Amino acid sequence: MTDTARGSSRRYGTRPTMKDVAARAGVGLKTVSRVVNGEPGVTPDTERRVQEAITALGFRRNDSARILRKGRTASIGLVLEDLADPFYGPLSRAVEEVARHHGALLINGSSAEDPAREQELVLALCARRVDGLVVIPAGDDHRYLAPEIAAGVATVFVDRPAGRIEADTVLSDSFGGSRDAVAHLIAHGHRRIGFIGDQPRIHTAKERLRGYRTAMAAAGLPVDDAWVSLGTTEPERVHTAARAMLDAPEPVTALFAGNNRVTVTLVRVLRQRTAPVALVGFDDFELADLVSPAVTVVAQDAARMGRTAAGLLFRRLEGADEPPRREEIPTRLIARGSGEIRPARG
Amino acid sequence: MTDTARGSSRRYGTRPTMKDVAARAGVGLKTVSRVVNGEPGVTPDTERRVQEAITALGFRRNDSARILRKGRTASIGLVLEDLADPFYGPLSRAVEEVARHHGALLINGSSAEDPAREQELVLALCARRVDGLVVIPAGDDHRYLAPEIAAGVATVFVDRPAGRIEADTVLSDSFGGSRDAVAHLIAHGHRRIGFIGDQPRIHTAKERLRGYRTAMAAAGLPVDDAWVSLGTTEPERVHTAARAMLDAPEPVTALFAGNNRVTVTLVRVLRQRTAPVALVGFDDFELADLVSPAVTVVAQDAARMGRTAAGLLFRRLEGADEPPRREEIPTRLIARGSGEIRPARG
Repeated sequence: MTDTARGSSRRYGTRPTMKDVAARAGVGLKTVSRVVNGEPGVTPDTERRVQEAITALGFRRNDSARILRKGRTASIGLVLEDLADPFYGPLSRAVEEVARHHGALLINGSSAEDPAREQELVLALCARRVDGLVVIPAGDDHRYLAPEIAAGVATVFVDRPAGRIEADTVLSDSFGGSRDAVAHLIAHGHRRIGFIGDQPRIHTAKERLRGYRTAMAAAGLPVDDAWVSLGTTEPERVHTAARAMLDAPEPVTALFAGNNRVTVTLVRVLRQRTAPVALVGFDDFELADLVSPAVTVVAQDAARMGRTAAGLLFRRLEGADEPPRREEIPTRLIARGSGEIRPARG
Repeated sequence: MTDTARGSSRRYGTRPTMKDVAARAGVGLKTVSRVVNGEPGVTPDTERRVQEAITALGFRRNDSARILRKGRTASIGLVLEDLADPFYGPLSRAVEEVARHHGALLINGSSAEDPAREQELVLALCARRVDGLVVIPAGDDHRYLAPEIAAGVATVFVDRPAGRIEADTVLSDSFGGSRDAVAHLIAHGHRRIGFIGDQPRIHTAKERLRGYRTAMAAAGLPVDDAWVSLGTTEPERVHTAARAMLDAPEPVTALFAGNNRVTVTLVRVLRQRTAPVALVGFDDFELADLVSPAVTVVAQDAARMGRTAAGLLFRRLEGADEPPRREEIPTRLIARGSGEIRPARG
């Protein structure tokens, strides 16, 4: 493109608009709006094209009027529950991307799984006048947030639902994904399947346990109490739980791990044993395809969860006045080897 | 300690914390959290002791009284450069732990490797009146921070040094670690060694390149320009760079990766090739010991970097008045297999 041509398509002082992005990407305006707002219904390929057009044109949502009016930089807060869990990397990055398209800064904090800390952090962010909050809750009572929401702080919960208040929520299909994972193990001949999950007060841990029990019941299989272990994801706890199930007189022949922290520990546990044990993990993780055997997982789309949550948040910030929505993001079973190991005869 | 002594030594963060309550009541933090949040699982006697400690210390669960009185909760900001790089997980968590011990909240943000974004974020955090900042810089000119530092915002730089201002800094020994890594490959018989690193404007990338060149020179080995490739850590870029080095008429027989993002991509690249190629990566990463061959790395102590940085920050917040310090955290070569592969004859 010549300078003149560029000059005519982008006159001095004009900023690229969503229309420019749509034209360059060869898609409709609504599609650009969906991508910018992190709404569902866009194929990955289309989204990539739109993102490329956004980058090429230097497109930014024009929120400056709003920022000037308020006298400060727009910002949203993201409350995580564990800074070291890689599940939150792509989720955080997706929220940040959407925030950036809206000209807003993202400020994170971590509750470190402590409900009191979550509350302290949320209120501190509100006191710093964030425009909205994306919360991965540690606690199960969020009535403390009601005055803030009433005062106009848009709030979206991700990964786990809000407790005792109504709010926009984005969840993975923990129940369906877990049921599919366990059905997959059953289809490969397993009858004694162990479940090692997160603490039972956590919504996703409960849902994944329910998926496990439902799949077992659907296949007419009993569940021995000794096959279920919920608790922290500390490696030592997971090690002990796995050993108890694997060294029992009638050992489990397969394990279903309730999240990626548990799965990674189980990969280490199983590598030290001679008899092969099948393994399916909830959550994908980096290099799951490169360890041996490669790990079969129920993959969550963490980036899509983040995008969807941020999209709902900015809808609220732009004035959407509608009842709280609950979006459920599907999971996907990825068979890589560890989940297709058949039980030894007997 | 008398109240007066406490007042003078702790002008920062004087509010009693849950930890103080736990210590006084002789119970764990979790128990205090349960009592404060009205959760079950606490005996009446324990609850009474916790309540007495709360009263004696004047602990307030609800921050609003204190926020009104003091204007804010003690907090420090942490500016990362990439939310999805797992190197920052343990670093963030360590900073958070230290902050918590000081009764302060940690607020994170990410520059996404954009110097303008870094500045915007840092100033937004200052406008929100954080007490101090830990910064992993994306840019190399931090004069914009000088007025904030003069106004009392303690600031520590981690992983990369500050540009054009003096400030406390915590770095890994990028130079020494890289020199050792390349010397290790040379000791295993390699003469043609490729280096794929991060963008050359980044301090650590430059230091690691310097380590590579120093080790090669010390062994009397020439460095072909085609063996050095600096740029983004995008998988596609790394793929292309690696292919060019490995498919050359005189291919490299070993690769040194400048950070964990590069290493993970190289593990994938090398797995698709038949001829074994040696690999050492700068940065350890989860599961590096479980892929095949296990990956030899120069491990950085990210948690120690975070702890050290936060320690320096709170020294400043507590009134330390001394010239800026520069701490260098040693690295450690961990031989696991990939770095001990010898070159094919010829």
